[in-house]
Amino acid sequence: MILGHFLVISLALNAGFLYRDYCKGKHHYQEFFSFKNECKNASLTLLETSPPPFSSSSSSSKAFDGIINLDHGDPTMYERYWQQMGDKTTVVINGWQFISYFSDVRKVCWFLEPEFANSIIRLHKLVGNAITEDRYIVVGTGSTQLFQAVLYAVSPPNASEPISVVSAAPFYSSYPLITDFLKSGLHKWAGDAYTFNKDEPYIELVTSPNNPDGFPRQAVVNQNQGILIHDFAYYWPQYIPISSPADHDIMLFTVSKSTGHAGTRIGWALVKDKEIAKKMTEFIVLSTIGVSKDSQIRAAKILQVVSDSHQYKGNFKESKAFFEDSYDHMARRWKQLRDAVNVSKLFSLPDFTSGSCTFSGRTFGSQPAFAWLKCEGEIDDCESFLHGHKILTRGGKHFGGSEKYVRISMLPRDETFDQFIERLSSISSS
Amino acid sequence: MILGHFLVISLALNAGFLYRDYCKGKHHYQEFFSFKNECKNASLTLLETSPPPFSSSSSSSKAFDGIINLDHGDPTMYERYWQQMGDKTTVVINGWQFISYFSDVRKVCWFLEPEFANSIIRLHKLVGNAITEDRYIVVGTGSTQLFQAVLYAVSPPNASEPISVVSAAPFYSSYPLITDFLKSGLHKWAGDAYTFNKDEPYIELVTSPNNPDGFPRQAVVNQNQGILIHDFAYYWPQYIPISSPADHDIMLFTVSKSTGHAGTRIGWALVKDKEIAKKMTEFIVLSTIGVSKDSQIRAAKILQVVSDSHQYKGNFKESKAFFEDSYDHMARRWKQLRDAVNVSKLFSLPDFTSGSCTFSGRTFGSQPAFAWLKCEGEIDDCESFLHGHKILTRGGKHFGGSEKYVRISMLPRDETFDQFIERLSSISSS
Repeated sequence: MILGHFLVISLALNAGFLYRDYCKGKHHYQEFFSFKNECKNASLTLLETSPPPFSSSSSSSKAFDGIINLDHGDPTMYERYWQQMGDKTTVVINGWQFISYFSDVRKVCWFLEPEFANSIIRLHKLVGNAITEDRYIVVGTGSTQLFQAVLYAVSPPNASEPISVVSAAPFYSSYPLITDFLKSGLHKWAGDAYTFNKDEPYIELVTSPNNPDGFPRQAVVNQNQGILIHDFAYYWPQYIPISSPADHDIMLFTVSKSTGHAGTRIGWALVKDKEIAKKMTEFIVLSTIGVSKDSQIRAAKILQVVSDSHQYKGNFKESKAFFEDSYDHMARRWKQLRDAVNVSKLFSLPDFTSGSCTFSGRTFGSQPAFAWLKCEGEIDDCESFLHGHKILTRGGKHFGGSEKYVRISMLPRDETFDQFIERLSSISSS
Repeated sequence: MILGHFLVISLALNAGFLYRDYCKGKHHYQEFFSFKNECKNASLTLLETSPPPFSSSSSSSKAFDGIINLDHGDPTMYERYWQQMGDKTTVVINGWQFISYFSDVRKVCWFLEPEFANSIIRLHKLVGNAITEDRYIVVGTGSTQLFQAVLYAVSPPNASEPISVVSAAPFYSSYPLITDFLKSGLHKWAGDAYTFNKDEPYIELVTSPNNPDGFPRQAVVNQNQGILIHDFAYYWPQYIPISSPADHDIMLFTVSKSTGHAGTRIGWALVKDKEIAKKMTEFIVLSTIGVSKDSQIRAAKILQVVSDSHQYKGNFKESKAFFEDSYDHMARRWKQLRDAVNVSKLFSLPDFTSGSCTFSGRTFGSQPAFAWLKCEGEIDDCESFLHGHKILTRGGKHFGGSEKYVRISMLPRDETFDQFIERLSSISSS
């Protein structure tokens, strides 16, 4: 009885992707996250299969059935850089290493590998994007787990009602799902922070630069009972000028969007308050008894090489320093996209004010990991419109915004991105 | 206000460990999981620091302050075997590998590395401890995450009341905590399965052999509305005779207790029903967007070498096959422990019926990863009694059982285990 329900789940988050539902011969696309499928014979077919990295076969690098999937933020753009770096980031792990659950029992976060902690501190000091002094570092299985750990840590444990969790729209589409999927009595999603006006404690998520629209953000609820969580997944110099080192109580970062290593599932939090760091650690113990040591060691190596590539350029003659290469890559892509959009009256993109980057010395406007594209004129449902042209994006309503907008990943492999630009240009000129 | 509570958390689970609370000069041990510390100047001191593997220094291999910590099940016993195996299980991961979130998008569990899936199937076929045919494999960040994924997958999503979760006492001490820590509206801990008699749907956890007492288990609630989850973390031939391949709807396994690699945080589920496998996958996406690829690749290598060590013995001349070595290790330790217990009237241990192992051909009684030790006579609180002798164990009440019992890890490093036997013998003869 309990198992009899027939849910077909299209798993979302940034890693989400779309299934096509073949039901009674009629194809229709489903909601991202979960839905009831009334069709007893429903089967799932994935729309795009990931091509192998650097495949030279044009057929395998083409999207399945001509469909270009830019719904999820899979950062495969970064593969090429890391291949150019050869064996500099190769890790070797012996069979007898990392048997134990424990990494450093003197630390609040006792499953944090010291090597990884050091690489985090070094990189933040180099880039200047966050204060690390007098902070506890908590490692997580991606920043997704850390977000949940923070919710657990700061929600009042014995309140009669779950605490409200808000974020200014448009907000990251996974926040509501993650906050509510277990129907927790500790916290509940309360929507757009701009409309929150209850006189009670709340948690506000501040994503800066923001996913999906790329703008820098500050807290918007003007009350003194709020707990702020700053999600800095994209506060790196390939995406936005670094203005100053972030200095907040709870700051989240992730390897996925800084170096591109999404498959390692490693994020970190910088936390000012010891008790919060302890409760976050407790959450991660209850959730997964710590975090993969192998991935921490690998992430440590990668972050060290990123720092080395800037500090010891002489050792990296064949390739540019990491943030130079990735800045150039993002700049090229944004120019391609703006060029394609500008020839048309159908679309528009956000305009970003130029700012000076303390890290690179450059003055530039943001070039975010996602494009927040607007369909102009009479196109009301931008996601469906683009879908009609076989471009999969995530529609604005998932972010608490308008259907006139879609979020488009700017981080696929070059082949896919070039196809996308070509496709978009052909719509524009048609 | 929200953050003002002063919780001192002693993180538990199998990976738990104990802090000593120095408060007003009075030492007292705290509950495992969470407690209110009324002492404003409380500080935490960890009782045992993990010695470095294979340390030859007798001082560093001795427990801190003479205390022997066998509370948690950290499987460091296995380090020595894997060191003997040299570079056979070494993994090498290049910087450009595993960038993507995706492993195999044709599979229900799209973040499962095919190499790891193959190694699981091969090992189960070799050992004969589980049916893998017509099963979906779901990988998790340890079986702890998989347990939560199953709860999410099988709990009715729209019930007015959370579904009851039960397990026969003594049960794994983390089950109640994990079920309830987020105050989920989907499921709630309902205690000892022997006393559950409500006429309503429920979930029963069957751990076989059982943690903490090592006995084989079957479901005990005699109703037809139950969903069974079989936790087979310890159903391996070093611990218990393999009687037949397990053939249940939902079966959980973990690398931590089979090969000892707890730090990799990898477990797997064998699931008969496709919809349950999908919902488990959905949970893991919402929880951590998949599972570390690096650790999956490492676990794959280790499981393959375990199989190789039995199937291609000629290539492993210097060392025994894995399950032979670990069987012998457990047999030696249980003989040491029974010898120490037998000279005393203070303690007793469970008696296990001998059974024939289809894998090894041996007939033997169980030699579990934990000893479920009973204090005989007038000792009512066995944990406190042993604590007085500086042996840290986990008391029976944490498992829904009697305080006359404690659970003792049988998987520490040799030095620690030998110290423990020596200490226990000295109590017996005093």
